[in-house]
Amino acid sequence: MTALKELADYVRETAMLQSVSAALEWDERTYMPPAAASYRAEQVTLLSGLIHQRKTSTVLAELLAAAEGDVVGSPPHEDDNTIVRQTRREFEKLTKVPQRLVEELTKNGMDGQQAWIEARKQRDFSMLQPYLERTILLLREKADAVGYESCVYDALLDDYEPGENTTRVAEVFSSLRDELVPLLQRVQSSDVKAPIEILRRHYPTKMQHEAGMLAADMIGFDFRRGRLDVTNHPFCTELGPHDCRITTRYDESFFSTAFFGTLHEAGHGIYEQGLRNDLYGLPPGQHVSMGIHESQSRLWENLVGRSRPFWQHFFPRLQRIFPEATEGTSAEQFFRAVNAVKPSLIRVEADEITYNLHIIIRFELEQELMNLSLDVADLPTAWNDRYEQVLGITPPHDGDGVLQDVHWSTANFGYFPTYTLGNLLAAQFFQQAEHDLGDLTQQISRGEFEPLRIWLRTQIHERGQCYTSAELVRLVTGQPLSIRPLLDGLVSKMNQVYGV
Amino acid sequence: MTALKELADYVRETAMLQSVSAALEWDERTYMPPAAASYRAEQVTLLSGLIHQRKTSTVLAELLAAAEGDVVGSPPHEDDNTIVRQTRREFEKLTKVPQRLVEELTKNGMDGQQAWIEARKQRDFSMLQPYLERTILLLREKADAVGYESCVYDALLDDYEPGENTTRVAEVFSSLRDELVPLLQRVQSSDVKAPIEILRRHYPTKMQHEAGMLAADMIGFDFRRGRLDVTNHPFCTELGPHDCRITTRYDESFFSTAFFGTLHEAGHGIYEQGLRNDLYGLPPGQHVSMGIHESQSRLWENLVGRSRPFWQHFFPRLQRIFPEATEGTSAEQFFRAVNAVKPSLIRVEADEITYNLHIIIRFELEQELMNLSLDVADLPTAWNDRYEQVLGITPPHDGDGVLQDVHWSTANFGYFPTYTLGNLLAAQFFQQAEHDLGDLTQQISRGEFEPLRIWLRTQIHERGQCYTSAELVRLVTGQPLSIRPLLDGLVSKMNQVYGV
Repeated sequence: MTALKELADYVRETAMLQSVSAALEWDERTYMPPAAASYRAEQVTLLSGLIHQRKTSTVLAELLAAAEGDVVGSPPHEDDNTIVRQTRREFEKLTKVPQRLVEELTKNGMDGQQAWIEARKQRDFSMLQPYLERTILLLREKADAVGYESCVYDALLDDYEPGENTTRVAEVFSSLRDELVPLLQRVQSSDVKAPIEILRRHYPTKMQHEAGMLAADMIGFDFRRGRLDVTNHPFCTELGPHDCRITTRYDESFFSTAFFGTLHEAGHGIYEQGLRNDLYGLPPGQHVSMGIHESQSRLWENLVGRSRPFWQHFFPRLQRIFPEATEGTSAEQFFRAVNAVKPSLIRVEADEITYNLHIIIRFELEQELMNLSLDVADLPTAWNDRYEQVLGITPPHDGDGVLQDVHWSTANFGYFPTYTLGNLLAAQFFQQAEHDLGDLTQQISRGEFEPLRIWLRTQIHERGQCYTSAELVRLVTGQPLSIRPLLDGLVSKMNQVYGV
Repeated sequence: MTALKELADYVRETAMLQSVSAALEWDERTYMPPAAASYRAEQVTLLSGLIHQRKTSTVLAELLAAAEGDVVGSPPHEDDNTIVRQTRREFEKLTKVPQRLVEELTKNGMDGQQAWIEARKQRDFSMLQPYLERTILLLREKADAVGYESCVYDALLDDYEPGENTTRVAEVFSSLRDELVPLLQRVQSSDVKAPIEILRRHYPTKMQHEAGMLAADMIGFDFRRGRLDVTNHPFCTELGPHDCRITTRYDESFFSTAFFGTLHEAGHGIYEQGLRNDLYGLPPGQHVSMGIHESQSRLWENLVGRSRPFWQHFFPRLQRIFPEATEGTSAEQFFRAVNAVKPSLIRVEADEITYNLHIIIRFELEQELMNLSLDVADLPTAWNDRYEQVLGITPPHDGDGVLQDVHWSTANFGYFPTYTLGNLLAAQFFQQAEHDLGDLTQQISRGEFEPLRIWLRTQIHERGQCYTSAELVRLVTGQPLSIRPLLDGLVSKMNQVYGV
């Protein structure tokens, strides 16, 4: 057996343990009886320990050293080189963090999440504050341990968007904001209104499930290799190379929650299902970054699912499923309703324009927290000020403000920007697909989603981690990350919906 | 830390890995997408390997040796002694079997099950035959390795009913058959018929689920610590100390399948939920044998669920759930219908009398296979002859004959007798509960199941593996295992239903 093969087998087995853990977490969030929670946490902790041991072991160090000999001089984007390079990268990052710090971060994250649940319920930020303060100290310590280019935040961002750096993202986001804010103002001052009330009619859960299954299947989520279930906070997860689980939640008096949620998660799922299954668990068969992952969900949710041709195709099917709720409406009205724009307090309910403003606020605040220019105690005030300044609204209480998201309580600083990176990437990829596929709009209006899905698979999914996200976007579109495709798309859509 | 505490922590962690594996297997049999099967098998195999390693490791050998020092002279039925004794027992059994044999048995069992699925579909025993021949050779080798008292079958039985021996079971079963056969003949010659047709009306799945949930909850299955789901071959499994999953399947044109199946699995579940949770994963907190486990399911299914007082209480509730299907019927008619007796080909559909005859046939055949007095090639003929002789019917093909059960294909020889042991034990325990609780019949007719459940918990569940099943039945009832309670109950019931 070659050293490379030995390394690959080892990495694959570690991934298998991770997929076991994913199965436990899927169950926890879908079907697990309530009293089972504490033992489930122990099971997941046990597996995490085994996985961490394997990922930082001297056995792995030896396998890596030997395999590096095997790939000397091979092209960097080939599979073998990618397996060694990415495994080395993870090994170095993990072994630089002391075991004590790993455990403290895990513990503080678990306690922090519990505190967050209660703090949000009580709308009392002070209940979360001490955990957040501790998280920031621990994450700064972690950043120092792993090292960074120019600021602490670089090290955190790298966990979710490997190879990206804070300065570049800040520049992109800043120019994005400069264009989104005036676009939002033009929409708000338009006399035209989107008929959002048709989405607030009665949509029975059972029928919503049928519509979601139909749409997910239609765009190409493979139900022989996946499932759709109900949960509180929807997610997509992989339990194996042919086992992708997506989830949603139903609101009988609002159509969009489940429908676009399902398209979104199906988009993540189509990415996972498009990875190279023969390399499952190895870097060339794994998603490259959270931003790229998010680009796939946003592309199907927004660029396909909220497009006029999609509704031309889907509306007759929707009518058959919801004869009552769709009465007196049209494809065009649905297209306009699902693209309604209005500043609101809650990120996960935001429209395509303001969503990115929600993210930019968080991205700025978390940098300030991390470089200690903002005290945790002052975070709620800073949050509210920023919302007033950017979106013109102020949360009535912290539950709908600074406490709305789980991320910070679980120490996931550096995650938020990947959502807007995903929006930008989605638009940039979609524009290229339109160029490459010719009549994409026509295809969508005829319900032909396969050419697009195959394009995405070939261009993005099957490349796994052979390229960084920055390399990938250049390779696929010939350009670096750009705000133009997203903005051009939004300007055009706002013209169609609001006549601005 | 004492040596005993160290041992207990080790054993608990092994049990935690087993519970993880149970979670994967539950998912496999309920919600897993079809294409995920082969990777799931790899995941389970990986965990089995880790578990087997832990259970046979030199670390465990050292922990055991040290802990044995801690419990010298302590009473054998106390927790500490039980932890050490039972762990030692398992360690000795497992380490006596060569690794090569373990792997061959696993492989042959997996291949055998696949062959069985196809053989059953094709009704072609020859497709299974070579696997069965190999299984018998391997199991004989295993029996030689672990040792036995007087025959190979002793060693196999010991895996499911520790401490039991073949001769004693054969004697008990023989006298049981001598009484069941004439009782069956009396029933068959009676002019009275049970109104089984009322069970074959239309019972919609959704309402059956409601009825099953109601009944399971009523007898005390705790849904905060468990679930009921749908599967092909119903089972009960534990995913943790507060996580018991039961399953059922629905047949819209036969009421009994799901209803009594659910009561049966809920009975298993109530046993699991009644174990001492603080000792989860340790022998005093684990079920003692398959026979005792089965006694708990049969007790709730047959002695409670098929009793007249149960139907007096439950029938008005059933009427509310199935107003149409219950029209023109009564509690008494349901009581009689669910106790209909008739020889039939399929074990899992058999009534309370013939069920045990199905088992006795299998028990005899598997002994003959194991001591090589019956060739595998002659098994189908032997099966059919025995059915004609004991039940007066002959299978039209092997699919409804020798191929109906999965057990032999997966090398589970020695398992079948525990079903009838369970029936005997259930009746013996129930008789004692009637004696101890006084008006048990009255309690059941009032829907008061808690006193019985608490009696079972105190007398049986909470004793875990502190006693063998033979010791337990003596301790609880003051008698050794006896056929009388079961027979007396059946004679009395047949008198009520058939007037014989």
